[in-house]
Amino acid sequence: MTNYDIAAIRDLVARRRPRHALESAFYTSPEIFAADMDAIFNRHWLYVAVECEVPEPGDALAVDIGKSSVIIVRGDDAQVRAFHNVCRHRGARLLPPGPALVGNLVCPYHAWTYGLDGALKFAEHMGDGFDRACLGLRPVALRSMAGLLFVCLSDDPPDDIDDVVRQMEPYLAPHDLKNTRVAHTADLIEYGNWKLVLENNRECYHCMPNHPELTIPLFAYGFGFAPEELSAEDLAQAERYETLRRTSHDRWEAAGLPSRLIEHLDDRPTGFRTERLPLDGSGESQTMDTMAACRVPLGTLRDKAAGGLHFWTQPNAWHHFMGDHVVTFSVIPLDEGRTLVRTKWLVHKDAVEGRDYDLENLTSVWNATNRQDADLVEMTQRGVADPAYVPGPYSPHTEGLVEKFMEWYLARLKAHLG
Amino acid sequence: MTNYDIAAIRDLVARRRPRHALESAFYTSPEIFAADMDAIFNRHWLYVAVECEVPEPGDALAVDIGKSSVIIVRGDDAQVRAFHNVCRHRGARLLPPGPALVGNLVCPYHAWTYGLDGALKFAEHMGDGFDRACLGLRPVALRSMAGLLFVCLSDDPPDDIDDVVRQMEPYLAPHDLKNTRVAHTADLIEYGNWKLVLENNRECYHCMPNHPELTIPLFAYGFGFAPEELSAEDLAQAERYETLRRTSHDRWEAAGLPSRLIEHLDDRPTGFRTERLPLDGSGESQTMDTMAACRVPLGTLRDKAAGGLHFWTQPNAWHHFMGDHVVTFSVIPLDEGRTLVRTKWLVHKDAVEGRDYDLENLTSVWNATNRQDADLVEMTQRGVADPAYVPGPYSPHTEGLVEKFMEWYLARLKAHLG
Amino acid sequence: MTNYDIAAIRDLVARRRPRHALESAFYTSPEIFAADMDAIFNRHWLYVAVECEVPEPGDALAVDIGKSSVIIVRGDDAQVRAFHNVCRHRGARLLPPGPALVGNLVCPYHAWTYGLDGALKFAEHMGDGFDRACLGLRPVALRSMAGLLFVCLSDDPPDDIDDVVRQMEPYLAPHDLKNTRVAHTADLIEYGNWKLVLENNRECYHCMPNHPELTIPLFAYGFGFAPEELSAEDLAQAERYETLRRTSHDRWEAAGLPSRLIEHLDDRPTGFRTERLPLDGSGESQTMDTMAACRVPLGTLRDKAAGGLHFWTQPNAWHHFMGDHVVTFSVIPLDEGRTLVRTKWLVHKDAVEGRDYDLENLTSVWNATNRQDADLVEMTQRGVADPAYVPGPYSPHTEGLVEKFMEWYLARLKAHLG
Ligand code: FES
Ligand code: FES
Ligand code: FES
Ligand SMILES: [Fe+3]
Ligand SMILES: [Fe+3]
Ligand SMILES: [Fe+3]
Repeated sequence: MTNYDIAAIRDLVARRRPRHALESAFYTSPEIFAADMDAIFNRHWLYVAVECEVPEPGDALAVDIGKSSVIIVRGDDAQVRAFHNVCRHRGARLLPPGPALVGNLVCPYHAWTYGLDGALKFAEHMGDGFDRACLGLRPVALRSMAGLLFVCLSDDPPDDIDDVVRQMEPYLAPHDLKNTRVAHTADLIEYGNWKLVLENNRECYHCMPNHPELTIPLFAYGFGFAPEELSAEDLAQAERYETLRRTSHDRWEAAGLPSRLIEHLDDRPTGFRTERLPLDGSGESQTMDTMAACRVPLGTLRDKAAGGLHFWTQPNAWHHFMGDHVVTFSVIPLDEGRTLVRTKWLVHKDAVEGRDYDLENLTSVWNATNRQDADLVEMTQRGVADPAYVPGPYSPHTEGLVEKFMEWYLARLKAHLG
Repeated sequence: MTNYDIAAIRDLVARRRPRHALESAFYTSPEIFAADMDAIFNRHWLYVAVECEVPEPGDALAVDIGKSSVIIVRGDDAQVRAFHNVCRHRGARLLPPGPALVGNLVCPYHAWTYGLDGALKFAEHMGDGFDRACLGLRPVALRSMAGLLFVCLSDDPPDDIDDVVRQMEPYLAPHDLKNTRVAHTADLIEYGNWKLVLENNRECYHCMPNHPELTIPLFAYGFGFAPEELSAEDLAQAERYETLRRTSHDRWEAAGLPSRLIEHLDDRPTGFRTERLPLDGSGESQTMDTMAACRVPLGTLRDKAAGGLHFWTQPNAWHHFMGDHVVTFSVIPLDEGRTLVRTKWLVHKDAVEGRDYDLENLTSVWNATNRQDADLVEMTQRGVADPAYVPGPYSPHTEGLVEKFMEWYLARLKAHLG
Repeated sequence: MTNYDIAAIRDLVARRRPRHALESAFYTSPEIFAADMDAIFNRHWLYVAVECEVPEPGDALAVDIGKSSVIIVRGDDAQVRAFHNVCRHRGARLLPPGPALVGNLVCPYHAWTYGLDGALKFAEHMGDGFDRACLGLRPVALRSMAGLLFVCLSDDPPDDIDDVVRQMEPYLAPHDLKNTRVAHTADLIEYGNWKLVLENNRECYHCMPNHPELTIPLFAYGFGFAPEELSAEDLAQAERYETLRRTSHDRWEAAGLPSRLIEHLDDRPTGFRTERLPLDGSGESQTMDTMAACRVPLGTLRDKAAGGLHFWTQPNAWHHFMGDHVVTFSVIPLDEGRTLVRTKWLVHKDAVEGRDYDLENLTSVWNATNRQDADLVEMTQRGVADPAYVPGPYSPHTEGLVEKFMEWYLARLKAHLG
């Protein structure tokens, strides 16, 4: 009934070769997957939804996270709360995954009825000694970060979330997430371990050979390169980018848009990173023509060339905030070899499809990029499961942030295993 | 190669909180599932078929029970016997699941040929020292209870079956199962542990919110309620039912139909319960209009309003015997999270579809009810697998028989684990 | 993180009853499957492809073997080599399963580029201290046996392969495999353990009851029988066959076609067996009318009635070499209960479909036979997984080669477990 051998995992952590990919077991063992769920996903802040998905009292959203399921619901007092989606009677799920509009939370099995604050209001036939007060829904820690909703399944969530919120809100606020809506959601199951999905996201070494669409708006040299290897022409490109980044930062910050790099990936429980990055071409948006996909600007943004604010959190999210739309990604492990990547495209809540934006144009870059990344993750999952696999070295120039993710992961795992 | 940790399961059994649902592991652990198969399904009497399914010599039926498979076959001496569906040579299955008409039981692989009494009659090329006598099919214990066929996979089956047969035959005999035939079989895979399927069957707390069809013939208050919670109107209903039950029992018993409750759910290996219950409306049958679905009455029953005799056995069956038809249910665990529920509708063997009964009318209440129960079981399986699940209390008024099932289950498991 | 309990498997090996099928666990336990992969498939020579599948420099073929994958590629020097299909950077698969035409082997992830000799030629952004020399593709041992390609995944492959090649090349050479091409490939997943697939192949006891097509060209008594059981008519048949075998061997050997039995199934790591067997009817080919399916003869064979040279290797292959075509089979375990059987039909490279052969006629006997064997293997897998299964005795007349396979398997497993 124990799920994993702690000593064996500790040994694997201890013998990890720095700046190298992990050994096979980290990606393929059901035991380490169970440990990851305990140590990482059940004890850290997870990005799961956007506040605008529950705009009114009674709006609810059930989100599955592995074997867990969380109900996010806006109460009659306009507060958003989160609860475990498990009835306190015999355990039935109260809501299926997805959105719902509810008066109370009524269990489908025997109709135990909970208020939007989680209290058990009514349970039939339970007899005299029955104490409703002890049987409310179990709450889940929830934080809204300028409209991005994070939950933590632990009863003792990392308290550094306050500092992340404090640092990030000035960056995110101008995009005014509360006045957006979800224009499109895409759920993609990638056939690889969740860590391969994250590693893939934490470098652009693979962008040039794989992402013809994404590298239209994104600069190829934005995430590192070996200067000694570049041709004169490529070096000129890299310098052009560096200059653009500097001048853009100055311009944006002067206009009240915080833009400079903040990086705390491996020095705290809630690892994060942000920076506003210039985009190529018109500089407006991550689209095939680099122009804004939506005519209605977000929030207070009037500079159409607002670039793309990237915001990463560990263990499970990344986002791109642009002047016209936002793309958010959340990663939900399914088992040691399958991971759900959920992508949401947000536009201003008043934007009308067909009139203000074309859905295909809005979503095409990231739909294509996700598909390409899913293929890479699957090829890598198969390769690392091969008995002949030997972890190879990370590039010091292009995979430094992969290494930071790994350092964070191993430190968090170690902290949990003791 | 050991399949489960006996000490760990013993601890889980010992710490069970009385009158509460079980802990998650009982529903989700492959180890406890293996223990359940050993302790419960391989050592108790299982209802698997009806004698009328093998009416003539040479009629056979293969039934899969988990990894086991049993052949039920009527011999040339008209006796029904059961054998393990495993060739004594290299182990091939002799028959695929389902009915067959056979002269001998001939293995499809190398044509070893067994008589209908299980003896190995013929095996080619086995040479001189070959002793056929030791290589007959392995018998399986079989009992017919007024036409309901029970098997026990153990070599040492519980002998209390004799007493169950003795007590039950007077109840079942009037329906004359031997002169019925199967009008319809429905196999439904429910995505939940077999114990959730049984718990669901052992209470009607969930009937009002979930079974609009079943609660036409069945009384809402037939399986318990909290009197102090009922309105004056509901109390009147409950009293009407109680009076009807008493007067019906008197009338039926006077007419030679044993009807009063016998309950031995938790005090013996072969737990069972029976009672003839009045039905609402015309009182005839579990149909949408409460009228008999089949014009040809069963057996000696001439009182059309014969109610519904319910008969439960542990671990795996329940049945409803009415004046015009019988519905039988058998539960076959597939793995810790999937369970087969096989429903058979029996009518008089002379009844002709289209003339004497309409199949849709005959089956609609229980097809709908099964589908609803399958959904509830699946929602509950997901909920109890959630790390946030905490077993809640059973209702003292409506879940007493669920508690008896659990007491039986835990006692049987403990008896096996020692 | 250990995958199997060595002591428990040793006990199972030790208590095996000679000349009987194995106990259930050998066919159904994931642990023994893991041991089989280690002890058998990762340490022995496996038949995987035909040299004519990579005829020119740059022709490559990726073959999955369980969790392993091997690239077979012909270099610019015309040598065929094999490599693990795993990038030395972060482990991505270099090629998907199947054929490819390549200049270099370029990883799809970050474009690390390997020569056809496996050397890492190019890796971008890896910085100053990076040593390409240590990061070439890991080689896989490869041998061509007159055009049949064998690989061994171990770094220390059994060296008796040299002797097998030496003995077999005279038998195989007349069929001139290098001038053939693959006319058809069929991949069939059989729902049984790989050992059941091999056992099935190592006897023809099941041929009469199951293979109406195959027993047209193949003699029913070619693989043993109990003489005392045969009728006078059947005995005459058996004698006719024995005479034909003797006279055919004399004729073929005189014409330079080695034909007599060589059997080393259980006395060496690379167990094998060969013999040229006469076919019934015209004696030409394993077809429905026993006539050659292809008009272009193979190699130097001008005697159309060249029978069928059968060649078995352990653990994973069998082949039939005829005058007009060759059928090769390789067995790839997928998990304890599923096995891939890959069948390839080879004809002369100049033969043109439609003109020189009809594909349906070429493939029909073995397609039908494979389907029948897959059904038998599945029925047996289900039976041996039944708790009631008891290993039965092998026929001394018809299952002697099954016993030799088992002796080989158990000895090899024991040698590995120590
Ligand atoms: S399980 Fe929710 S009310 Fe019973
Ligand atoms: S397995 Fe049944 S006859 Fe061989
Ligand atoms: S994994 Fe092959 S180049 Fe990176
Ligand atoms: Fe990517
Ligand atoms: Fe129900
Ligand atoms: Fe066969």
